[in-house]
Amino acid sequence: MQRIGILTGGGDCPGLNAVIRAAARTLIRDYDIDVVGIQLGFEGLLTKSCVALTLESIRGILPKGGTLLRTTNRGNPFEFPVGDGRCEDRSSTLIDNIHELGIDGVIAIGGDGTLKIAQRLCDMGIPMVAVPKTIDNDLAATDYTFGFHTAVAVATEAVDRLHTTAASHDRVMILEVMGRNAGWIALYAGIAGGADIILIPEIPYQPENIVKMVQGREREGANFDIIVVAEGAKRVGGQEAYLDKATRRLGGIAYQVAADIAEQIDLEIRVTVLGHVQRGGSPIAFDRILASRFGKAAADLVAQKKFGEMVAVRGDDIVSVPIRDAVSRPKYVDPDGNLVATARSLGISFGDGR
Amino acid sequence: MQRIGILTGGGDCPGLNAVIRAAARTLIRDYDIDVVGIQLGFEGLLTKSCVALTLESIRGILPKGGTLLRTTNRGNPFEFPVGDGRCEDRSSTLIDNIHELGIDGVIAIGGDGTLKIAQRLCDMGIPMVAVPKTIDNDLAATDYTFGFHTAVAVATEAVDRLHTTAASHDRVMILEVMGRNAGWIALYAGIAGGADIILIPEIPYQPENIVKMVQGREREGANFDIIVVAEGAKRVGGQEAYLDKATRRLGGIAYQVAADIAEQIDLEIRVTVLGHVQRGGSPIAFDRILASRFGKAAADLVAQKKFGEMVAVRGDDIVSVPIRDAVSRPKYVDPDGNLVATARSLGISFGDGR
Amino acid sequence: MQRIGILTGGGDCPGLNAVIRAAARTLIRDYDIDVVGIQLGFEGLLTKSCVALTLESIRGILPKGGTLLRTTNRGNPFEFPVGDGRCEDRSSTLIDNIHELGIDGVIAIGGDGTLKIAQRLCDMGIPMVAVPKTIDNDLAATDYTFGFHTAVAVATEAVDRLHTTAASHDRVMILEVMGRNAGWIALYAGIAGGADIILIPEIPYQPENIVKMVQGREREGANFDIIVVAEGAKRVGGQEAYLDKATRRLGGIAYQVAADIAEQIDLEIRVTVLGHVQRGGSPIAFDRILASRFGKAAADLVAQKKFGEMVAVRGDDIVSVPIRDAVSRPKYVDPDGNLVATARSLGISFGDGR
Amino acid sequence: MQRIGILTGGGDCPGLNAVIRAAARTLIRDYDIDVVGIQLGFEGLLTKSCVALTLESIRGILPKGGTLLRTTNRGNPFEFPVGDGRCEDRSSTLIDNIHELGIDGVIAIGGDGTLKIAQRLCDMGIPMVAVPKTIDNDLAATDYTFGFHTAVAVATEAVDRLHTTAASHDRVMILEVMGRNAGWIALYAGIAGGADIILIPEIPYQPENIVKMVQGREREGANFDIIVVAEGAKRVGGQEAYLDKATRRLGGIAYQVAADIAEQIDLEIRVTVLGHVQRGGSPIAFDRILASRFGKAAADLVAQKKFGEMVAVRGDDIVSVPIRDAVSRPKYVDPDGNLVATARSLGISFGDGR
Repeated sequence: MQRIGILTGGGDCPGLNAVIRAAARTLIRDYDIDVVGIQLGFEGLLTKSCVALTLESIRGILPKGGTLLRTTNRGNPFEFPVGDGRCEDRSSTLIDNIHELGIDGVIAIGGDGTLKIAQRLCDMGIPMVAVPKTIDNDLAATDYTFGFHTAVAVATEAVDRLHTTAASHDRVMILEVMGRNAGWIALYAGIAGGADIILIPEIPYQPENIVKMVQGREREGANFDIIVVAEGAKRVGGQEAYLDKATRRLGGIAYQVAADIAEQIDLEIRVTVLGHVQRGGSPIAFDRILASRFGKAAADLVAQKKFGEMVAVRGDDIVSVPIRDAVSRPKYVDPDGNLVATARSLGISFGDGR
Repeated sequence: MQRIGILTGGGDCPGLNAVIRAAARTLIRDYDIDVVGIQLGFEGLLTKSCVALTLESIRGILPKGGTLLRTTNRGNPFEFPVGDGRCEDRSSTLIDNIHELGIDGVIAIGGDGTLKIAQRLCDMGIPMVAVPKTIDNDLAATDYTFGFHTAVAVATEAVDRLHTTAASHDRVMILEVMGRNAGWIALYAGIAGGADIILIPEIPYQPENIVKMVQGREREGANFDIIVVAEGAKRVGGQEAYLDKATRRLGGIAYQVAADIAEQIDLEIRVTVLGHVQRGGSPIAFDRILASRFGKAAADLVAQKKFGEMVAVRGDDIVSVPIRDAVSRPKYVDPDGNLVATARSLGISFGDGR
Repeated sequence: MQRIGILTGGGDCPGLNAVIRAAARTLIRDYDIDVVGIQLGFEGLLTKSCVALTLESIRGILPKGGTLLRTTNRGNPFEFPVGDGRCEDRSSTLIDNIHELGIDGVIAIGGDGTLKIAQRLCDMGIPMVAVPKTIDNDLAATDYTFGFHTAVAVATEAVDRLHTTAASHDRVMILEVMGRNAGWIALYAGIAGGADIILIPEIPYQPENIVKMVQGREREGANFDIIVVAEGAKRVGGQEAYLDKATRRLGGIAYQVAADIAEQIDLEIRVTVLGHVQRGGSPIAFDRILASRFGKAAADLVAQKKFGEMVAVRGDDIVSVPIRDAVSRPKYVDPDGNLVATARSLGISFGDGR
Repeated sequence: MQRIGILTGGGDCPGLNAVIRAAARTLIRDYDIDVVGIQLGFEGLLTKSCVALTLESIRGILPKGGTLLRTTNRGNPFEFPVGDGRCEDRSSTLIDNIHELGIDGVIAIGGDGTLKIAQRLCDMGIPMVAVPKTIDNDLAATDYTFGFHTAVAVATEAVDRLHTTAASHDRVMILEVMGRNAGWIALYAGIAGGADIILIPEIPYQPENIVKMVQGREREGANFDIIVVAEGAKRVGGQEAYLDKATRRLGGIAYQVAADIAEQIDLEIRVTVLGHVQRGGSPIAFDRILASRFGKAAADLVAQKKFGEMVAVRGDDIVSVPIRDAVSRPKYVDPDGNLVATARSLGISFGDGR
């Protein structure tokens, strides 16, 4: 190995820079390998947008959000958009470019889409090592992904702030957080913030159960409610169309929930849609350490020529698993698991009538 | 003076508890006056919902958001809602109750509505002292109101977080903050966070100017934009009806702005609606000090029998002004003032084509 | 089981209230068991200082630092101080009191000292369940203890702040953090903050190695250094006596390190001693969730009559282990483990010349 | 004016980068003037260490602590150190260099030392504009200096964290903050955090008064105390020599206070020395705005050729004052002023027996 490329793909996630830094430092310092930053994800391999990563050029990036290498959702080389909604396979160009650039292997940091591309390229002979990235924490192969706990911290701080107002002013506060398919952020932030109701994709809700919970609490003297709702939360029987399409595309399920219950409750309702505030900014210490360990481990895998592998964390150990296995196993909240049970014991309702 | 009541009225604002604590401590310690907390604003004087405030009972409230005394928007004694949308004047009941409760004067902490009621009661012979409260900072009689800088801090942190993602991922990020009539929070948070575009009620915007700004920045190589929009921002010629009424009532002007520009720009747009996260939670140090000084000053006014006065800050001095004068003078952002000029020099657009 | 007591022992740790809340809620809601809060640790069982814990009385404590039940280091019933430096065994009084109070079992939340007392009482027939508490994370039986990640977050924020000044102003910044026997906080915060040198009890340092590191970095153009030192860090060959005793008792190893290197380096040195700032304040989301899960699990153990057990976390699972096993196995930083190796790959020196 | 230099001098202060950015942006965008960054304060004018500041090169620095231009305390051109403790006047070299570099004027951002040099250079014909910088806020010419409120925020967060532990665990917590000559940070953070005792240079303390306060609070049932002490706090009759010189040079008055009272009180004492954590890191929104307004105003002064002036804030207005006047007037805490009176009404002791 003489020269390794690093790329980041998909949406933002706090800790990307920490992975890049740790991988590059380890490759340079421990293995004397040149490191090249590939910009804009796999697209940078099609356009040969690269930049040398040196100890100097990566200085100071550890605490920073975003990614030094920038990224995009457009760069799938197997289905590269060429206008008019058409796509074509440019993987052979990509492979040619890798050789031309003298890149002997690639560390790909990304989510489901990126991992799948990495696996296909690996099958075609490109030495790939992967680092999983999903703010949603929905990957079975690893206990946690970096960035997730930062998103939870941001969402929890929002719940904390809503709490004091709700309690003083008799309000129902609805907080919409990320989680299109998996409700981990909502579940964690809801427990950590002491929410009253948590709505997640894995447990469809019925508006009447929310109303019952609100009314029950009123009877007990608690004239306020905090509802944390994942953007992918669904009513039993499927999401009805209250929101116009444009609003829905930008988030806004919280407005749906508000509409669902507004007529049956007396309390005033207020909505917060956190959006990308959860994805940006400086990672918390936990995520910086996890990301640094992932970066170091990815560099070690490269040096040991263990390609086709993805780094992961199990308990306090950093391990590796075949990328192939990882991409096929999403991790959803288990409605009968310990975490949901803990939430229920704390008095939290999931809007499912239990 | 033997017994003084304290009440809080209107929406939430970080620092209410700090005012209560400082006023109560000063009355008890310096003047040996009993202090009674009136719950739920003026409504508590109609229902005689009071609680003794002692050095012990107010311990630990300084850093807390919300108000120990709870509050509501319903308690106008001059127009008290009696069902069927009808109201009646219950001010004489209120005045009787004050006498029955042995209350010799009232410190009212609240916004425009609360101040107006306080003034009328003062005119009717009830000794009142006022402490201004508005998260929006839109009161001419005082340089600053407590809570405002906390709201700005929360909004600025959100801008900071959006910044890293926007820059790495080529996004337009729209952040909706509070400010129905005055754009102070948007202006401060926009400058502090380094926004590219700020939209406020005082400077109506034209969508084409936003689009021009976005395109101009793209030409200069900046493929992202941060837009901070006050909830009361308006298009030139008035707000058009994109949003259905229910959504608008809960906030959501950010979606309007997104719709205004979505078709003319290439970048993906993402929306955050901060909502009541700005009103709740622990006040920052600045606001705790200002609130403490206001509370102490209000107690001093009571002891000096300077009724009909409201506390205020000018530079580093705590002063008092007649409540009467204060309620009549809102403070809007001056489109030709130094702060807007500073923003323009920094390269910020207000969507007005200048 | 009809009535369960809960107590907290030893030093402060963010998350104690979250454990209390979760245990009490679970006992009351799921098992219909009365809950009694025992004040001041085991001492409260000698003085019968108890208070009923109800859903109402524990409201709002989740995000709060400290412990609702207050605590102390004095309450060992087997060696109770009776003046003149003498102690006596009051365990039979304690056991009598437990029966008189109608307490059928006790959940003890505490560190090494508390766990040992709990084990002895268990051996004497008192039904005990334990929840481990150590800010230092030095317990082998569990992957993590609550509070630790909050301490790391506080220390990391300090490193972040020191970084910008150090880099702009050519300074050596020494930050002293907690960790008398184990260096986990220093190691985590040092990695997360991007420290240059980390000094921990497990890896004795030699001042000349620190000087070499500083000089080496100067040659590479980095005119600043961040040193994170655990309070229990030691020189090779043992700690020499620079500090007078009074200072050392209050912390202050950072001054020792400063003295060790001051004469051989040109850069100015500045010291921060974080102290109890690391132990107090609101727990971060991670710790609130872990603490809540621990509390719930402890309540379940009580209901299942699994006494003599301590809750723990392994990976993402909450498990239980015999208290007996837990107290005998401290967890130190492994100088040859993955985390130290990651730090070394990142370029961090431990002052040991490697 | 064709080319303007900007330099930063003295210790670190959050907001330096925001001033640089605002001044440079205004000069470039509004006045079409070239901007040169002078590195390491006035020393950079002796060594001609300069770098062009462009819209591109200053991107992203707004939220960052430290200074892009780096700085030092060594660069006084009138007394430049030449080894062996000797100094010589190199001001004529500096002036020659300014001409050679084609610099038509200089914006100097700095504290007392920097301002005095700026004034002397101005007297010698160099067009200078000044921006005041002192974390300690001890300048009479301006209501506030940037950075001060950030330092207060950091110190207040520390007090908040100490509070929960102190209250749960019966401790005296001593927090040492900055303030060698003026006690503003201690006073603000002490009020904002709800301290019990504040010790500042302006009000000499007597240990027996601290002891009395601690004992008085114990009698009232408050078994804990928070003491905030400015590094320049003094005993009545002058500081006695408990601390060895090396410790004192690095801070550590908190240990002195601990020693002063340790024998007379029962409670355990714990010490935190915040140090440079107060000077570094991202400025809070308030300081970013003040710094941005200062930078913009300094650029306007340059364009208007108002040299020899320093920017300042009065109430909500940005004004300018002669540098000459500013350097001669420090601002100390007034022991009889409103802020100290507020603190006393809140129950805070200054250790002076009142």
